[in-house]
Parts: sequence; C-alpha cells; structure tokens
Amino acid sequence: MTEHIIDPSVVEAENAKRIADLKVDYDTLGERLDRRGISIDAIKDKVAGFSVAVPSWGVGTGGTRFARFPGKGEPRDIFDKIEDCAVIAQLTQATKTVSLHIPWDKADPNRLKQAASRFNLGFDAMNSNTFADAKGQLQSYKFGSLSAADKATRDQAIEHNLECIEIGKTIGSKALTVWIGDGSNFPGQVNFTRQFEHYLDSMKGIYAALPDDWRLYTEHKMYEPAFYSTVVQDWGTNYLIAKELGDKAYCLVDLGHHAPNVNIEMIVARLAQFGKLGGFHFNDSKYGDDDLDAGSIDPYRLFLVFNELVDAESRDKDFHPAHMLDQSHNVTDPIESLMLSAADVQRAYAQALLVDRNALKAAQEANDALAATQALRLAYRTDVEPILAMSRHEQGGAIDLLATYRAAGYRAKVAEIRPEVAAGSSGIV
Amino acid sequence: MTEHIIDPSVVEAENAKRIADLKVDYDTLGERLDRRGISIDAIKDKVAGFSVAVPSWGVGTGGTRFARFPGKGEPRDIFDKIEDCAVIAQLTQATKTVSLHIPWDKADPNRLKQAASRFNLGFDAMNSNTFADAKGQLQSYKFGSLSAADKATRDQAIEHNLECIEIGKTIGSKALTVWIGDGSNFPGQVNFTRQFEHYLDSMKGIYAALPDDWRLYTEHKMYEPAFYSTVVQDWGTNYLIAKELGDKAYCLVDLGHHAPNVNIEMIVARLAQFGKLGGFHFNDSKYGDDDLDAGSIDPYRLFLVFNELVDAESRDKDFHPAHMLDQSHNVTDPIESLMLSAADVQRAYAQALLVDRNALKAAQEANDALAATQALRLAYRTDVEPILAMSRHEQGGAIDLLATYRAAGYRAKVAEIRPEVAAGSSGIV
Amino acid sequence: MTEHIIDPSVVEAENAKRIADLKVDYDTLGERLDRRGISIDAIKDKVAGFSVAVPSWGVGTGGTRFARFPGKGEPRDIFDKIEDCAVIAQLTQATKTVSLHIPWDKADPNRLKQAASRFNLGFDAMNSNTFADAKGQLQSYKFGSLSAADKATRDQAIEHNLECIEIGKTIGSKALTVWIGDGSNFPGQVNFTRQFEHYLDSMKGIYAALPDDWRLYTEHKMYEPAFYSTVVQDWGTNYLIAKELGDKAYCLVDLGHHAPNVNIEMIVARLAQFGKLGGFHFNDSKYGDDDLDAGSIDPYRLFLVFNELVDAESRDKDFHPAHMLDQSHNVTDPIESLMLSAADVQRAYAQALLVDRNALKAAQEANDALAATQALRLAYRTDVEPILAMSRHEQGGAIDLLATYRAAGYRAKVAEIRPEVAAGSSGIV
Amino acid sequence: MTEHIIDPSVVEAENAKRIADLKVDYDTLGERLDRRGISIDAIKDKVAGFSVAVPSWGVGTGGTRFARFPGKGEPRDIFDKIEDCAVIAQLTQATKTVSLHIPWDKADPNRLKQAASRFNLGFDAMNSNTFADAKGQLQSYKFGSLSAADKATRDQAIEHNLECIEIGKTIGSKALTVWIGDGSNFPGQVNFTRQFEHYLDSMKGIYAALPDDWRLYTEHKMYEPAFYSTVVQDWGTNYLIAKELGDKAYCLVDLGHHAPNVNIEMIVARLAQFGKLGGFHFNDSKYGDDDLDAGSIDPYRLFLVFNELVDAESRDKDFHPAHMLDQSHNVTDPIESLMLSAADVQRAYAQALLVDRNALKAAQEANDALAATQALRLAYRTDVEPILAMSRHEQGGAIDLLATYRAAGYRAKVAEIRPEVAAGSSGIV
Repeated sequence: MTEHIIDPSVVEAENAKRIADLKVDYDTLGERLDRRGISIDAIKDKVAGFSVAVPSWGVGTGGTRFARFPGKGEPRDIFDKIEDCAVIAQLTQATKTVSLHIPWDKADPNRLKQAASRFNLGFDAMNSNTFADAKGQLQSYKFGSLSAADKATRDQAIEHNLECIEIGKTIGSKALTVWIGDGSNFPGQVNFTRQFEHYLDSMKGIYAALPDDWRLYTEHKMYEPAFYSTVVQDWGTNYLIAKELGDKAYCLVDLGHHAPNVNIEMIVARLAQFGKLGGFHFNDSKYGDDDLDAGSIDPYRLFLVFNELVDAESRDKDFHPAHMLDQSHNVTDPIESLMLSAADVQRAYAQALLVDRNALKAAQEANDALAATQALRLAYRTDVEPILAMSRHEQGGAIDLLATYRAAGYRAKVAEIRPEVAAGSSGIV
Repeated sequence: MTEHIIDPSVVEAENAKRIADLKVDYDTLGERLDRRGISIDAIKDKVAGFSVAVPSWGVGTGGTRFARFPGKGEPRDIFDKIEDCAVIAQLTQATKTVSLHIPWDKADPNRLKQAASRFNLGFDAMNSNTFADAKGQLQSYKFGSLSAADKATRDQAIEHNLECIEIGKTIGSKALTVWIGDGSNFPGQVNFTRQFEHYLDSMKGIYAALPDDWRLYTEHKMYEPAFYSTVVQDWGTNYLIAKELGDKAYCLVDLGHHAPNVNIEMIVARLAQFGKLGGFHFNDSKYGDDDLDAGSIDPYRLFLVFNELVDAESRDKDFHPAHMLDQSHNVTDPIESLMLSAADVQRAYAQALLVDRNALKAAQEANDALAATQALRLAYRTDVEPILAMSRHEQGGAIDLLATYRAAGYRAKVAEIRPEVAAGSSGIV
Repeated sequence: MTEHIIDPSVVEAENAKRIADLKVDYDTLGERLDRRGISIDAIKDKVAGFSVAVPSWGVGTGGTRFARFPGKGEPRDIFDKIEDCAVIAQLTQATKTVSLHIPWDKADPNRLKQAASRFNLGFDAMNSNTFADAKGQLQSYKFGSLSAADKATRDQAIEHNLECIEIGKTIGSKALTVWIGDGSNFPGQVNFTRQFEHYLDSMKGIYAALPDDWRLYTEHKMYEPAFYSTVVQDWGTNYLIAKELGDKAYCLVDLGHHAPNVNIEMIVARLAQFGKLGGFHFNDSKYGDDDLDAGSIDPYRLFLVFNELVDAESRDKDFHPAHMLDQSHNVTDPIESLMLSAADVQRAYAQALLVDRNALKAAQEANDALAATQALRLAYRTDVEPILAMSRHEQGGAIDLLATYRAAGYRAKVAEIRPEVAAGSSGIV
Repeated sequence: MTEHIIDPSVVEAENAKRIADLKVDYDTLGERLDRRGISIDAIKDKVAGFSVAVPSWGVGTGGTRFARFPGKGEPRDIFDKIEDCAVIAQLTQATKTVSLHIPWDKADPNRLKQAASRFNLGFDAMNSNTFADAKGQLQSYKFGSLSAADKATRDQAIEHNLECIEIGKTIGSKALTVWIGDGSNFPGQVNFTRQFEHYLDSMKGIYAALPDDWRLYTEHKMYEPAFYSTVVQDWGTNYLIAKELGDKAYCLVDLGHHAPNVNIEMIVARLAQFGKLGGFHFNDSKYGDDDLDAGSIDPYRLFLVFNELVDAESRDKDFHPAHMLDQSHNVTDPIESLMLSAADVQRAYAQALLVDRNALKAAQEANDALAATQALRLAYRTDVEPILAMSRHEQGGAIDLLATYRAAGYRAKVAEIRPEVAAGSSGIV
C-alpha cells in the first residue's frame, strides 16, 4: 500500500472546500467542449494517464555561479529527496517517477528501490555526471570528459556511465541520459573534429553496455559551461550521434538549450519524423539555460511543443517520448515549483488534445493560414484547469495544489528535522 | 585572348605608383614569416589559386522591403552584369566564375556562354528561384513551392529546377543551388512533417535529373521570408536532406543564415567531417541575413571558418567546397564591394594558411588553451595584404583595388550608357 | 448616421446563431469571476471603451525584399483603404480610428475627412515617410534623412514632416509619429555622434511646428533597413530624444523592434515611470521585425505588456498611451488579420484587468514569487472570449469575427471592383 | 623602489633573444606608418601611457554553476592576489592598478596599501557585493539587495556600500562600482516600478556619502543571476540612474552584458555624447556574460569600441573613462589570460589611434561608405604587436609575455607554497 506523506485528511479537507465549484466548472466546460465535439471525460482520462518524471536534484534549491541562497528544510540526501518527490506525486498525481543523478544520489541501490516503492514511485532515466569532478576522482574533467584529448580521462568517463547503468539495472530504470559540458572556451582550444571523434568513440563504449530494453538519451546544449563551443551543441549534432550509435539511441530536447529565436517545436517535429525523438527536459527560459518553471515564461511555446507530440502520436501509436522536468528553483520552494510545473506540462498536453485536427488539416491543405492558427488558438485559449483539477481529485490528489501543500505545512515540518544550510557566495564568478 | 574592360594601362599606371612600396612590404613580411618557418611565396601561390564566384545579382543594387535606392549605371540585363563581373575578375584576379540566377538571368544559353568566354569567365552553380512568382507563371508560390500543400505548385517548382539544370548543362555549370523561402508565418499554418515530406519528394525529383558530374547544393536559412518557420531552417535539416538524396547532394552554408550567437565554424567542421559540406555563400551580418560585405562586421569569424577549411583540406585532399559571394549592396557601388569582399575572403584564407598546425595540435593535446588560441591569433594578426596585392599584381590585377577601379572611371562610363532607374518605395512594408 | 459596409442583417443573422451559447458562456464566466470578486460587466465596459487604431497600410498585402504576393481585391488607394478599415471597425467595434501614412495616403484632406466620417472613423497619428524616396523628390534618402550628412536632405525631410502636421491638422489628427530607417551598413560609414546631433537638430525643427495639443511619437528599432547601426536603435536613445525635445515628445514602442530576448514589458514600465511612454505599435514576432499578427507568437508577452499598462493606469489616471496595430499581412486576408489582432489586443487588456492587484502586491511584498506569478497566470488563463464577444455584440459587432466576415463575402465583392495586381518578384534581394 | 617578483634577469634574458627581431619589425612598421603620415613613436608613447586595472578576483580560477576546476597555486587571500597582480604589471607594464572586491578582499586597509605600494600598484574602483550573502549577515539578498521589497535588507546593502567607500578612502581609491544581481525569475515576482524606486532611493543614500573627488559607477546587465528581469538591465536604465543621481555618477559598460546582436560601440558613443560614460569592464563573449578573455572572440568589436573612445577623446580632452578587465578564467592560468588580455586591450587602442580621422570624416561627409569602412579596416589590419612589445621592453616589461612568464616558472613556485584546493562540483545546478 502506498504511504502518504501528507495526511490524506488535509487533502480531503482542502478538496472539500473546492469540489462544488469544481463540479460546476467541469460541467460547464464539458458543455462548451461538447459543442466542439469533444468529450471532456476522454480528455480527462488522457490527462490522468500522463506522467512527467521529477529530477532528484530539482527538490533542492538551485543557484548561479554568483550565489546560492538555500531554502528552509532542504533535503539532506537522496532519501529526503525521495520523500519530497513523494509529496509532489501525492498532490499532483502526475509524477510517478524520479530521475536519479550519479554521483549525487549514490546510495545502496536496494535501499533506493525500497525508499521509492514505499511511495509507489518508480525510477526514470539515470543521469551521469562528468561535468564536475567527484571527490577522489583520478582524472579531472576540467578539459573535457567523454571527448577529452586525454585517453585516461575519457576511459574514466566511460566507466562512470557504465556504473550508472549498473545502478539503474538494480533499481529498475530503463534509460541512461548523457549530458556533458565538454567544449571549449577559446577558438583553437580544441579541434572540433577530433573532439567529436573522441566523443563518438566513448559513446560507442557506453552504448555497447546498454541492456536491450534500455534507451540511451543524449542531450544537446548550445553553451554553458563551455563558452566558445560545445561538443553536442544542437539537434543536428545530437541527431548524428543517435544515428551513429544505433536503434536504442535517441535525442533528448531540453527547452532551454537552444540559440535565441530558434523554433523548438519544429526541432521536435523533425526528430519525431526521423525516429529519434527520445524525450524532454521541460523548463522555461527567457535568455539561456535559465531552468525556470515550465510554462512560466512562454506558455504558448510549451503548448506548441505538445501540439507536435499529439500530432506525432496520431501518426505513430508507438511514439512514447520520455517526459522529465529539469528546473533550477532559486527563489521558490522547489516542491511548489515542481508541482505547478507538472500541472503546466499536463495543461499543455490537455490543450493540445483539444485541437480539432481535422479542421486544422483542412485549413492547412487550403492554405487558410488564419483558420489554421485559430484552430490552435481556440484549443490553447481554453482554460483546462477544471480537467486537471478533476483528474487530480479523482486520484486522491489536490484540487488546489498550492493551497493544499501550504495547508499541510510540510516545509515547516521538515525544516524542524533538516538542519539549515549556510547561505553564502559560491565564490565562482 | 581575354578581353579587358578596364584599360590595362590604367591598371599598370596605378600599380606603378605602388609597386616599390609593395616589394618592400612583401619582403619584410617574407622575412617575418621566414622566422616562423613559413615561405611567403608558397602562401602567395595558394592564394593565387583561390577563386570565389560572383553572383550575377550581386552587381545590382540591393534593397530592403522598405525601399531600394538604385545606384548609377546599374546593369540592365545579364550581359551588363557579366561585364561588371569581368571588371571584378580583371582587377581582383580572384573571381573566375559567375553564378546565374534563373529566371532573372534567363537568356539564350549560347549567347551567355559566349559573353562570358570573352572575359575568360566560367559559370558556377545555377540558382533556381521559387521564392517569387515570375510573370506568366501558372501557380503562385505565395504558400510555398517545393513543399507546397498543392501538388501542381510543387510540380511547377520541380519543373523550374529541371530547366535550370538544362540551361546549366549548356553553359558548363556543374551544380545546382536550391534555396527556397518555404515555411510559414503562423503556428499551425503548415504541418511541419507533411511539409518536409513534400519537400523531400520534390527534391528527389530534381536530384534524379542531376547529371552524374554535378552537385546539388541545398541551403538552410533560419527565417525570412517566412517568419514563423522555414522548411530548411538549419544545418540539421540540411544534413538530413543531403543524406536522404544521395552522394551528389551537399549542404551550402550562408554565413548570415543562422540563429544569433551560433558557432558557425563548428557547423562547417561537422558538415566537413560527415562529408556533406558543399560550399559557402560568403557575406557578413550583425543581425539577420543582412548580406553585408564578407568580413566587414566580424572578420575573425571569417578567419575561423577558413581555419576549419584549411584543417579539413589537410585531412582530405579531395575536399573542394564551392565558394561564392552572396551579398546585397544597398549603399555602395556593388563592384567595389564585391572586389573588396573577394579580397577579404582571400585574406581569411591566407591567414588560415599561416596557422602553425603542429603547434596548434600540440597545444590542443596538452590542454594548453591559451597557447592554442594564440596560435590562431598570431596567424590572424598578420597583415597579409602584401601577399594578396603581390598575387594580384603578378596576374595583371590591381595592387590597390579601390584606387585603381576609381581611377578607371568605369561607373561613370557605364552610367552614360545605362539609363537611370527610378528610385522609389518598394511599397512592401 | 454611420454607414455600414457589411449589411447589418448579415451580422445579425450570424450573431443569432451564436447568441444563446454566448449568453450561457458569459453567465458561467460571470459566476466564476464573481467568486474571485470581479464583476464581469465592469470588465466588459472597460473592454468596450478600448480602441486600437488601424494603420492604412495594414489593409494592403505586405511582402518581403524577396517577393510580394498580392491578394485579391487589394485597395487601390486610401479611399479603398478607409472602406476596408470601416469593415474592421464595424465588425470588431474596437478600431475607431485610422492612422495615415504620407505620402502613400496623400489626398485632399477634406475628402479624407469626409470619407472617414461616413463610417464614423477618426484619424489617429500621422506617419511620415523618409525611409523611401517619393517620386519627384529632389534629395535621396539613400544615405539618411533627418540625420543625413547632407543639410539639404535633412531640410527636405523636416519639410516633409511639417507637411504631415499640416495635413493632420485638417483631418483632426493629434499626433505625429516619426520612424526613420537612418543608420549605416558598415562600421565607420557614419559618425554615431554627429549623426545623432543632426537627428536631434532636425527633430527640434519638427517639434517647434507641433501644435500645443499634439504629441510627437518617436519610434526606436534595432535594425532594418540599416544593418550595422540605426540612429534610434533602442529605448535608451528614444528616451534621450523625448527628453531633449520636450513635454509633447513621447516614445513609441513597437513590439518587434528589440534585440532578441529583451524584456519588453520592463521597457514599457520604465518609460511609463519616467513619463515618456507614448504608445504602441502592436504586432508579434519570432525573429526580427516580423510584423506578424499581435498575439500570434507569444500571447503571454502581450498580456505582460498590458499588465504593465493596467498597473500604470492604476497609478496615474491621466495615463493614456496610444494603441495602433502595425503588421504586415503576407499570407492572410489583411482584414481578417487586423480584426483578429484587434480582438487579441483587447483580450490581453481584458486579461490584465482580471489580475488581482492586491493579491499580487501582497505576494510581491512577501517575496512569494510563486504566488505572485500565479496571480498573473490565473488572470491570463481565463478565457475572456465571452466578454469580448458580448461587448462586440452589444455594440453591433460580430460575435464570431471570422465567420461573419466570410459570410458577408466582402473580399469577393471588392475583388470584382478592384483590379488584380500582378504578382512578382520585388527584384530587391 | 619597486619590488620585482619575477627576477628581472629572466625578463632581460628572454628579451635579449627577441630584441633584434623586434627592432627590425618596429622599424619596418615605422616606415609603413610613415607613408600614412603616422609617427610610430607617437603611437608608442600613447600606448605606454595606457593602463587597464586588474580585478583582484580575476587572478583566481573562475567557474560556472556546474563546477569549478581549480588551478595550481591559486591565491589564498588578497595578499597573494596582489602578488599575482604585481607579476602582471611587471611583465605587461600596462596594469598599474588593482580593483578590490568587498567582502572578498576585506583586510586591514593599511596593510592593503602597504602590500600594493611594494609593487608600485595603486587601487582602482572599489567593488561592493550584494549579490551573495556574506557569513554572519543579518538579512539575506535572496530576493534582492538595494532594490529589495524589505527595507532592512535595503538598509544593510546601503551600509555595505558605505563601508566600501570608507575602505577605499584609506587605500586611495577614487571610485565605487555598484553591480547588483537584483531582478526577478518570474513574471509578477516584482513590481518593476516599485523595485526601481527602491533602487534609486538606495543609490541616493550611497551617492550622498561619496567624496567629492570620487566617481560612482553603475553597471547594467541584461540577465544572470536573475532570469526574467534585472533591475539595471540595459544602458537606458543605467543612464536614468546616472542622471537621477548627479554629476559624479557614471555608467559602466561591461562588454558581455548586452542582448544578442546589440551594437555596443554605439552605446559607448551615446553615453560619451551625453557625458555619462564612466568606463569599461573588458572581456569577450559569444553567448552571454561569458567573461572570456578580452578580444578572444570578436577582436574587431573591441577595436570598434576603442575607435569610439579615440573619437570621443578627440572631442573632449577631459574624457577619461576607467578601464578594467573583468574576466573569468576557467581553463587557463589566470595570470596568462590577464597579461594577454591587457595587451589585447592596448592593441585595440593602438589600432584605433592609427585611424586616419580626416580621411574617415571626409568619406563620411561624402557618403562614401566603402572608403569610410576601409579607413577603419586599414588601421585594424595593421599588426601593431611591435609597438606594444617595444613599449613593454622600454619600460622593463617582457617582449614576449607568455614565453617570459613561463620561463620564470612563477606558477610552479607559488604552487609549492599555496596549497591545492579540492576540485569539485559546486552543487548548484
């Protein structure tokens, strides 16, 4: 039986205050959708089946190179993190898995499994880390890891990824995500071609060790931490990688990892079309890899991404990209941000499901640009909150996520147990 | 025998004023390069062998959607344009070919051939145009051409490309360049996937008609004239196209067609590594596809591109990408801009040849980022003008391009023959 | 009495099909807003009082430097344009004024006035044009206008603006908008400081002729048609201008005229705070000055701009910025785009009115970033279409803009009268 | 007498190897410049008089939010840092001052003064830090400092700046630089107007305490650490601040703090024209605030900035902006990067001095864009290294900075004394 961290009676009490209004709103929305030929219950069922993974590191407070300002009651270790993730899962009913990061979350795999199963949580993709040096590590990643000029360094980085796979096997993960910071800060610092050859060689070593029912996700990013060039800089390179490696290799799209103005939904469409869209790291951004809450800056873009996903789904029943949040919460309670972000990802999905695809296609074929874009706008404008809330309510989650979480007083409770972390400059400007 | 439009005696007189100083400068530079183990004559010979094509449309004055302000003595037709190109070739000795644009340059192919051979000019890649409607055309490209939803429109666009190949065969071209403006202005206006399927199908039709000794160049561009999405938006899509089409298909890189901040030299390296770098449209830009003179805004970037080309050359003797200028001259005499741009492209090549590749590689292998980047900077800082000028002089070109052209009074002469074009608003804001 | 171009019976018939559903939707939305302490009728009244000007040039089909693809039934002159604007005003009830562009719309001012008053339309700001050469003009603006190096050119440009003021006086305009393309395409082409001195001097000449009850709007733009520098490149320079000129001078913000990633709503706030926000040119963009339909690319950004306007309004009752659409309709029927854009601007205003400003302020003061941003999201998520539609209906406009306009068959009718314009290349690449 | 950290005999020995070649190069360059009417010695004297401040934090290894990879022999405290700065000053003869950062460099002011005077180093602007929490600080800057909603926090931040002024008075600084990270991560998190009012109030408190012969520099930055809005986001806001505060307040321009594509040299010109250009933080960047070595990414841009400075100098003899390097050295020896960056800043200055300003002005007045830009290019293309090297040599510095520094073995020596810092993840992603 699933343990609940938040006392269900708190959830019920909060829901009780809102259920009458919600029913009215759900019904009136249902009528409006009915006029458009859409069954609200069918949408709700699809939403209920949607899940996005929570990254273990997301429940801690993030920071920048200038400073990190810790919050209260920060998780001390992966077991605290799993509890925080369980809170999110309980209230949202939309985050059924946790994604681990090695070495940050390194622990006895069986203990990890046990901790998660208490809350009926599964494990999503394993994340390796060769962008920072771990204590006691022989070779430094200062000048690169999987693509480093130095062979011993590359071998160590490969070895680390193999270890991640091993841990993942025990805890039931089915995927490895590889993001590296390798690149260069100066023109000439690296030879682009040789560096990429090294990268591909290293990745082949990792791919070879991948179990048959696993997927390998590689993630592109334009810049940061490298500031002149990055070895996996965009989806073009990412595609080449997935193609070189084989059928289990897929590209991961992080919404904040692109050049300014880039049409991300189109990249999503291309990767889907060529069978290499692995999944997403959801977040939002205004400038660079800002890692802000999904949908908080440009919610229409998030909807347009989901519009592509629903479109791809309609062409290919086996299309199942992975969904994960990947955000940095510098000024909010991470649990609050993750709950609302999970809901906003669901929201975009629900809105995309409302698009009248026949009308859309007809407008496209007729070169009726205005009618086509209005088909999207009509779906996007629809306030689907009653659908999300009803779905949560029916599964035991919270109608009002923020109010319920705050009413439960979770943060204050863990702040009593978990010691305060000293604020301070990161010293790395 | 090659005809000269500029009286050689003018060139000689101008060169006579400068040759003594040039010899001093060439010799002292030779000594400095000698200290670095470089033979100045060897560099000069490579420079002399370098050519960049001039686009026929480049010799006319360009404009924007807001206005076009014609210059004096603008070419009336392709035959005037060829004469302007001949002037550029004569003075720079660096532009041995002209690249035609159909239908703008449509004329009797044999007459075209004759006109060019008078000046010993060859023809570079043929450029098709399906981004504007030609007079009398049945289907409009308002909503796309090779990727249009409408089959008749796609067929017409294919047909036009086949015609370009036919003309090219007669005049001795060996390549077709396809750039289209197809895309969309609104989310939903097109289905990304279906549009790209149409594009690929159309291109397969064109590719099938390509002679065995030809190359097909496709060109990506982020945006403009389409402002929400473009079907060939970046090198990732461009690579997919070249891969789908076959061994004669290559990617063309226009330096102004990328998202802000993108590392273009790295794209060049990737395409070269995967055997799909077809060539370049050289120009410079600060904001978008500004089509400014090559090297006028960021000359170091141009050098870094050539650094990749020289690096690729050193790995593969059969590496011969096509070079073409593609600029819009709105406020200068187009001939002046094209001459100096050709020289600036040569300059970047000469500087890239000066890079000590052994020292560079050693620094890279040793993770000595500073020494590596200084190896590039040392080469780039070298003022290679004496090499370019001596190369021009030895081939009958002008030591000082601008002074010689102006001394010859070419523009004033053609302005007497070619009628003034009315200035005015383009009416398309 | 106001003349109607669309037969009111068509509007009534279309509205009759939708009024029952609209009433239900309006009422259920009213109930939901009531729970939040908001009176839906009060919002509707504010919406009804909101108007955005239509630019005369917006009713023609736009284009790019690559091509212009005309639509059917394009207006032949300003009188046709006024009729198109009247259609927009009739159906949307949200566009009570037209903004003229001289010389494009030059005609007998009294005839202009008469033409507009037939439809109860007023005239918004006059727009001068010194970015293109008009026929017969003595000096060319190729190298600048109000900031040109050449005095005669500057004087001519001043004179043109004075003429715009004169025309405006007759037809009842109360503002002059000055946007110029002056800048440079090459480093060194102009001396930034001297050029700006010339600009300020010229503007002082224009300002001196401004009637006391007029406003002077200057508009900044980062680039295009100038591609290296633009004399009024950003709001910083724009502010300096307004400050130098005097109390009747204000800054105009065009949403598409900024650098990538710039926070435009913050610029709006700064200009409002320092008393220099004159108004807006609404449109949307993904890359540059794309001039797409307002709200079509990033509707949340449009909302955030209006959030600032409502905030400024709440501090200063005399805050009345000017609203104008400024779009280029390349692939849609311009009337359709302008109608829906006017509605989308109203929508953003209505949503901004829904923000609970007390809750927002409380969250801000408490550093509760999540609650603060949710206060905005809650307002933005609200589907206010019933409010807009009811407001239109009550004033004689169309509940469903697109369906009603299409049912009326206006475009087909004018296409019979107005001759087709030849499609074709603009010839300016 | 000035103490030397690097044994002068090492410098002399290295210089001895190179002086003969340098003399040849200097003389032949002198001849070439002579032809252009330029005295090489006059340029050399100006270069010799040029100095750029070194930031104390620049001599430590930087990092990103992902990781910091320490180098060998990192300075343990401000006294080690001063020694590193002395090495840079000795070899470059171009960095006569050090800029301190409080609290990082907090120490007994008299001891600081003594430590610097040993090496004949002065102190440049004081830098306050309210972007991170110092140990023991009562109020946190998590939600802002000088512009925080909370008054106690603002007061603490003001107090800290007053303390910086006090320290500066003792050690002989004449300026305070204020850069803050205040902003927001979510739409709505702050009220832009109220936040800026708080900021201005706080700054007025600091300005009031500024000695009469000091300057106050405020620095704008588009984003990071705040990712939705930043209170001093651009030069427009920065200008407003300097204007509001008074005559001792000036704007500081950091080359990496702007939106993509922004024309920075034009901002420099505007601020100079309106009397508010305070100075620079030199560095280079490709993406955001990358803090790469000055001139390493876009050396022409650095030249264009200096072209404006020399132009402003020619108009106003009292124009003396402050010059400081502000870089993050993640993969190089910071001393090496700072030495070469100081030289590259000097290089840009020397090249800008070579511009023929009469020819440039003549071309500008004649609308001869090509000749104008070539006047800049001619100066920029000139390899002025012999001028820089001769200037260094004559003042006791190193002809070849990198070779001499490495020959001296400084880093290895301090690495013996200064303990290794543990590498590791910053833990703040």
